[in-house]
Amino acid sequence: MNIYIACELNIFEKNFIKNKLKNYKIYFSNLNFKKTPDRNFLNSEVVFGNIPPNWISKNSKIKWIQLESTGFAEYSNTNKNYLNENVIITNLKSFFARQVAQTVMAGIFSLYRGIDNFVLLKREKKWIGDPIRAELDILNNKNILFFGKGSINLEISKYLKIFNCNQSFIDSNSKKNSINNQIKKSEIIICALPGTKKTKMLFNKQILNNLSKNTILINVGRGNLIDEQVLIEKLKRNSLKGAVLDVTAEEPLNKNNPLWSCPNLILTQHSGGGYKNEMIDKINFFINNFQKYSKRKKLHNIINPSKGY
Amino acid sequence: MNIYIACELNIFEKNFIKNKLKNYKIYFSNLNFKKTPDRNFLNSEVVFGNIPPNWISKNSKIKWIQLESTGFAEYSNTNKNYLNENVIITNLKSFFARQVAQTVMAGIFSLYRGIDNFVLLKREKKWIGDPIRAELDILNNKNILFFGKGSINLEISKYLKIFNCNQSFIDSNSKKNSINNQIKKSEIIICALPGTKKTKMLFNKQILNNLSKNTILINVGRGNLIDEQVLIEKLKRNSLKGAVLDVTAEEPLNKNNPLWSCPNLILTQHSGGGYKNEMIDKINFFINNFQKYSKRKKLHNIINPSKGY
Repeated sequence: MNIYIACELNIFEKNFIKNKLKNYKIYFSNLNFKKTPDRNFLNSEVVFGNIPPNWISKNSKIKWIQLESTGFAEYSNTNKNYLNENVIITNLKSFFARQVAQTVMAGIFSLYRGIDNFVLLKREKKWIGDPIRAELDILNNKNILFFGKGSINLEISKYLKIFNCNQSFIDSNSKKNSINNQIKKSEIIICALPGTKKTKMLFNKQILNNLSKNTILINVGRGNLIDEQVLIEKLKRNSLKGAVLDVTAEEPLNKNNPLWSCPNLILTQHSGGGYKNEMIDKINFFINNFQKYSKRKKLHNIINPSKGY
Repeated sequence: MNIYIACELNIFEKNFIKNKLKNYKIYFSNLNFKKTPDRNFLNSEVVFGNIPPNWISKNSKIKWIQLESTGFAEYSNTNKNYLNENVIITNLKSFFARQVAQTVMAGIFSLYRGIDNFVLLKREKKWIGDPIRAELDILNNKNILFFGKGSINLEISKYLKIFNCNQSFIDSNSKKNSINNQIKKSEIIICALPGTKKTKMLFNKQILNNLSKNTILINVGRGNLIDEQVLIEKLKRNSLKGAVLDVTAEEPLNKNNPLWSCPNLILTQHSGGGYKNEMIDKINFFINNFQKYSKRKKLHNIINPSKGY
């Protein structure tokens, strides 16, 4: 059986895969994806990595693709029946939960304990000391509102238990009235929602205006969730305590994007899912799934691109 | 009974005390402490706040002083017998634990998730994105070494449980050999030690050179614990992952202090104990203790200044 690897790997990682899958023929893609698939791909039954969606139907041998992402929107227009019947696609759902959850904790603690402020004061060599204390806060007993109940928010929820916070979850069944009431009394709002028609601009002007000035708003889902213009105005007027955005409408941000100069805002540049052992752990996930595949067992994280999950 | 309040309070806080202690005569100090105590102090049996130590023996009516600090070194030279027999002193031991513990969490998460870096990149309007991911880390399964087993470190220890870290504690009984071995394999070292002869410069060149380059060093105890010159050299050479200092040898830091321009260092300007409800909660602690006092029950946090605890 031939395996085509389309991830960006260093020599150590390539050798790691070769060692783990000694009995198979491994092809490493040069990642220079052309319109016509390369011959190695066309000879492979298993793929690890996000190949161009239009390549799939050109390979008559392909049976399984392990994506290296959680999202898979680019595959949703691929010929539905073909995919469902002949090719299994698996993704890395939940793989990024711990990292993203810890970026959220970093954002909350930074705003509550003034780290963002202290980093800039250090750059300016400016001591303020005692007067800052009254601006700091602690996490205990806070009202937390989660948008989405996926692996990221469930992970954060576990971390928050020790702080005796009051946690509530909004999902697609929540009523608009109840959402507005909960938003008003929430001190921290954490959004980890998929990108769908329903979530696009969910945080429009009307919803944002319901937030209290003590609220921190966090988005680690998709960049089209929030009306950034309104968010910036609110942060500038101090009618919101702070915000943490891992995702933004524009990525990468241009120099003239007004988010750069917005106060009380932490921008984590879509790094939330990252960490130093990310690639090795992705490889281990693939190899673990491959062992199931070779024994004809059910794979982890099978998705149905046409249904969107 | 007369009560002398020597804390910096706003009108709201003064009224809060007056309301809670309606049946007593309350004097608010102007905080302009002269050599000779003011008449109101001399007529008071109970004091809330850190009055000049040399005032104490001049007041024949005084029976109890509630300090508004954890530290009490300035009272340790006060006439010992006099204090032990006639005047009870209580402090705010443990009061600052949650706040300081959360500043520690903020520091760890900021370094692991790159917040200090992202704050500076935002100031420069500079997008890096993906390449940063490999520099990030998560807290799970890390080796944590605590110096001190007081309320701050026990609080942090509770927060870390969910991350399945390997936690060890060093105290005054720990052997030097064992300390050196544990230091070498620790990824996070958290120091919350009192200022004594034993702890002064405990982190000298020899100990600092035993730290691994993956280690984060945190100090929220006293500013004379660490040889800052050696620490700065190590951080500049990347032979240490990062450091968080809430306390420093010099406070406030002068413009020319080399800590300001040291990389991978977060300086929190001795704000660790602070938060927005700090004064009201201190007042509540005093009132709670006062209710015990008025019923002749044993007070919380009685200290013996001459013994140092």
